[in-house]
Amino acid sequence: MKIAIAGAGALGGRFGLYLHNAGNSITFIDRWKANIEAIRKNGLQADLDGKHIVANIPIYTPEEVAERREHFDLIIALTKAPQLSSMFDVLKPIIDENTHILCLMNGLGHEDVLSNYVPMERISLGVTMWTAGMKGPGFLHLIGNGYIQIENLRPEGKDFTLKVIDLFEKAGLCPEYSENVHYSIWRKACINGVVNACCTVLECNMAELGSLKTFEPMMSQIISEFALVAHEEGVDLDQNELHQALVKACEPTEIGRHYPSMYQDLINNHRYTEIDYIDGACARKAKQYGVNTPYCALLTELVHAKEELLIK
Amino acid sequence: MKIAIAGAGALGGRFGLYLHNAGNSITFIDRWKANIEAIRKNGLQADLDGKHIVANIPIYTPEEVAERREHFDLIIALTKAPQLSSMFDVLKPIIDENTHILCLMNGLGHEDVLSNYVPMERISLGVTMWTAGMKGPGFLHLIGNGYIQIENLRPEGKDFTLKVIDLFEKAGLCPEYSENVHYSIWRKACINGVVNACCTVLECNMAELGSLKTFEPMMSQIISEFALVAHEEGVDLDQNELHQALVKACEPTEIGRHYPSMYQDLINNHRYTEIDYIDGACARKAKQYGVNTPYCALLTELVHAKEELLIK
Repeated sequence: MKIAIAGAGALGGRFGLYLHNAGNSITFIDRWKANIEAIRKNGLQADLDGKHIVANIPIYTPEEVAERREHFDLIIALTKAPQLSSMFDVLKPIIDENTHILCLMNGLGHEDVLSNYVPMERISLGVTMWTAGMKGPGFLHLIGNGYIQIENLRPEGKDFTLKVIDLFEKAGLCPEYSENVHYSIWRKACINGVVNACCTVLECNMAELGSLKTFEPMMSQIISEFALVAHEEGVDLDQNELHQALVKACEPTEIGRHYPSMYQDLINNHRYTEIDYIDGACARKAKQYGVNTPYCALLTELVHAKEELLIK
Repeated sequence: MKIAIAGAGALGGRFGLYLHNAGNSITFIDRWKANIEAIRKNGLQADLDGKHIVANIPIYTPEEVAERREHFDLIIALTKAPQLSSMFDVLKPIIDENTHILCLMNGLGHEDVLSNYVPMERISLGVTMWTAGMKGPGFLHLIGNGYIQIENLRPEGKDFTLKVIDLFEKAGLCPEYSENVHYSIWRKACINGVVNACCTVLECNMAELGSLKTFEPMMSQIISEFALVAHEEGVDLDQNELHQALVKACEPTEIGRHYPSMYQDLINNHRYTEIDYIDGACARKAKQYGVNTPYCALLTELVHAKEELLIK
């Protein structure tokens, strides 16, 4: 199976590295110049639980890949959310009737974008608990273990999805076939919709958020809004379980003192956030379904406001 | 008429100074020790449009005033909103059947507190466009002109209110009797509910707020929430007029580059804000009336969250 990974950031790098080391044909597609140069010059480097690893994996810009007219059986989508459609616009010429897409990105609504490029039966979605960081361009920082839940969007896609799971299994990525990946996607979006949005607006870490007197009412309202919209899409979120998981995630432990990714993007690095694919997606879908999600709407507006104020 | 001013901050100081200079008997009641000491030692000093003025006006703590058993015909309420009830709890012994209260404080719901101390017919409310600042304890910084709109809460109180207006007129405070001071109070609360809350959560000035792409939807929703609750109290806010007034207030002029008082309280001085008497009061009243004001609720929660994070 020829596999391309669209988006060779931290997580794309980890999956590419594991799949390459298991003997698969991997191609990275990326737009970050310094990353491309570093990987071409030195190979993809990684500090994997303290061990230094190098892998020679080809990396191209989307334009270069389109020009080479290579066929891929599977394209794994791992771009930044706002760059997904511009990436696949350029890849269009190499997408044919045998191309499948596996989307492992955080957030809601990516299948709506991807279905502009391949039919629903050739799209599968995944939720991953693997984490990854970068020490710099072309250099991954990888700690610990994770797993991936994957499901095809249409029953006709299941055979192909099982083949992908087999490859992932052999690569040590601990995949599992899920009959309800939508539940996991909504659950993760809701957790991020509380933690990422609130920590970014308030400029605090998870433990600080969890210690606030107003954490409880804010969290409860946001959970109920995600549950309302998820229900419209046939997913019934367990609000009590989410409540407990969020309280636990925001305990003053080592993880609690962590600043979530949206905070890092905006407050530390002055980069645009993925709010439109989390709280913003929930609010957008709510409008379509005629239900109200005012906390998600205001948090989205406030994060966009902070983007305007902080990104010059 | 013997007049006490409960709260000898910037605005209380200005009104006391003007009324004293017009020959009225004025007593300040305050809890800020440095302010009391400075006024006792040096008199109340003011830089009034560039001119240095000193006035000898007595100032006491509420406990001292209660002990002195002095009678006041009028107590002007100008405390920080959260200190209103504790101030009047101490003043109770000197409040008799001839004591009137004029509340000139910003925000909503102060009459509910004050009606615990005197009946509604002896309460009047005012809205002021006078501004005032302080150079330090006992030293006012006063620029420009303003006016005051005043109305008694019950028709029986009108005669007394007209006498107060006469005194204010002679003191140069440009008072006017209003048949609809509740409209002005709600209008001002709504403007503060947009500008103060958003600038504090986003840590920006009014011109920056006005320049944001998300200013329009946030402002529209907050205005509609204040209008909804005001309507329940018999006040029909002109939402278009408020919209235009807010856009104008947030133009990149000199005033636009001003940081509103709530921002100054919390972000500069790490003091608790008056959010509970603006957006918080709107959300609290909304609950009583069974209507929804989610933007006011979330902004109140976020400002309280920032108070917890910033005030140690």
